[in-house]
Amino acid sequence: MYNIGIDLGGTNIKAGLVKDGVIVKKSSIKTHVGRPYEEIIADMAAQVKRLCASAGVDLEDVASVGVGCPGAITGETGLVCYSNNFGWTNVPLGQMLSGMLGKPVRVSNDANVAALGEALYGGGKNLGDIVMITLGTGVGGGIVLGGKLFEGNESKGAEIGHTVIALGGEQCTCGRRGCLEAYTSATALIKQTRLAMQEDKDSLMWKLAGDLDGVNGKTAFEAEKLGDAAAAKVVKKYLYYLSEGIMNFCNIFRPNAIVIGGGVSAQGKNLTDRLTAICEEGHYGYRGTPKVKIIAAKLENDAGILGAASL
Amino acid sequence: MYNIGIDLGGTNIKAGLVKDGVIVKKSSIKTHVGRPYEEIIADMAAQVKRLCASAGVDLEDVASVGVGCPGAITGETGLVCYSNNFGWTNVPLGQMLSGMLGKPVRVSNDANVAALGEALYGGGKNLGDIVMITLGTGVGGGIVLGGKLFEGNESKGAEIGHTVIALGGEQCTCGRRGCLEAYTSATALIKQTRLAMQEDKDSLMWKLAGDLDGVNGKTAFEAEKLGDAAAAKVVKKYLYYLSEGIMNFCNIFRPNAIVIGGGVSAQGKNLTDRLTAICEEGHYGYRGTPKVKIIAAKLENDAGILGAASL
Repeated sequence: MYNIGIDLGGTNIKAGLVKDGVIVKKSSIKTHVGRPYEEIIADMAAQVKRLCASAGVDLEDVASVGVGCPGAITGETGLVCYSNNFGWTNVPLGQMLSGMLGKPVRVSNDANVAALGEALYGGGKNLGDIVMITLGTGVGGGIVLGGKLFEGNESKGAEIGHTVIALGGEQCTCGRRGCLEAYTSATALIKQTRLAMQEDKDSLMWKLAGDLDGVNGKTAFEAEKLGDAAAAKVVKKYLYYLSEGIMNFCNIFRPNAIVIGGGVSAQGKNLTDRLTAICEEGHYGYRGTPKVKIIAAKLENDAGILGAASL
Repeated sequence: MYNIGIDLGGTNIKAGLVKDGVIVKKSSIKTHVGRPYEEIIADMAAQVKRLCASAGVDLEDVASVGVGCPGAITGETGLVCYSNNFGWTNVPLGQMLSGMLGKPVRVSNDANVAALGEALYGGGKNLGDIVMITLGTGVGGGIVLGGKLFEGNESKGAEIGHTVIALGGEQCTCGRRGCLEAYTSATALIKQTRLAMQEDKDSLMWKLAGDLDGVNGKTAFEAEKLGDAAAAKVVKKYLYYLSEGIMNFCNIFRPNAIVIGGGVSAQGKNLTDRLTAICEEGHYGYRGTPKVKIIAAKLENDAGILGAASL
């Protein structure tokens, strides 16, 4: 039997036909956000049927369909309660897609689904319990315990980016102050980089970025490699923020691994080895605790498809 | 069949014979900390045998024994890796007790065990997923998911008191700075109360406490009830710290309930209703999320016995 995994994104809808944890065939269509949700969901159903046909697989041989969708999802019912990216409120995505395909459909938050993919088939494979931190525009989270996604009541948990690490600190998009997201998202890193550039007009970061608008999540890391002191300071502080969050999750979950995903994870070992050193020095706040591996995500775009197919 | 639950404390060892979640008979002996651990464990075994005999229950009819012990425990093996209270390092508590009684013995951290007791038979009964925060000398934690204790790898997780909420903040006993424990333990509340008293020599708190040594975790709450402004400020700030921690755990676990235990929980609804109001105003940092009940623990001393018996 096959499973279908769909990564429903703001730009593209990527679907994959999966067998035994391997993507047999993939397809991608444009989402065209702004259309009525019924159209988008009908497109997804058609995409699934075409995907099966092109792979020569009968829809009969598909056991189930899983969808990763940005926003707050009620997993049990597949209801998209709220998705900022799509402007959706209470969209019965799971129910509609299931009706169109005649298959059981399970919907989960996209960050959660990516974590499941990484835990089962990517960086966290065979490592046991995993907390995944996705450092992108925001900070997404995914928690996999005993090979299963832990999402909390009505699937509204695992919002690890919205845990306060700095009382009364930086304003977060969620309304609270001092959230991990406000310090460790790529957006926050870009803000921190720009501030440092404004304080040091001679920094190499100006050469790399051109101007403030040209700054991205790599600017500080790259300038640091070239020996820029201001950039090194930005990176050091960013790693400090991130390590404090990681140590919190270690103390709560004592997982086998923390998997770092999102754009910032492209730094690879330069990121994870340094975080490991900081966290070991901070000895996770407790004596005699088992070590927690800190690793970068591996699957990139396929994590969403593989995770969704495993729902 | 019966189960035995043992709450191994620094002063007393309390054991209970439990059937269907009810303590049939209890006994308490002195721990006499400082003795060789072999003596303490032999006393526990003898206590269990006496307890069964006095209840007219054959040891044959006891299915298993559970022990709640302060410190870092490896649940799988019942090894007490480190217990500050007893001065123990790598004590094979589970193995020895099991050998003496000929019964399977499971050992867990005392805060975790108390959380299990509250989740199954106390304030969290029938409420589903529970995060318990024990506000005492330190801040202990217990996480119960789907009726089962979640303890993390080698049972070294659920250390929710050692999550940083204030980067670079107050020094914590664990070595980190800014941990929830350093802001919300009874110890921290007492420290905050004393500071406020030193700043306001006319505060009613002086009358209630006598002097700084007479301050306890109730002083500020009681003076506030009598209309003392300085005390009200202490309580308000304390509730702010605590609510930020609670909202963090809500966003991570989205549990059905947060159960507050430990000495501070004696404030009952004066504590939990106010925390609920603050957290609802802070809307848990996310739209459309299910409400999380914030309740006080109910079982007091029996939580440890009932939880241990359920291990």
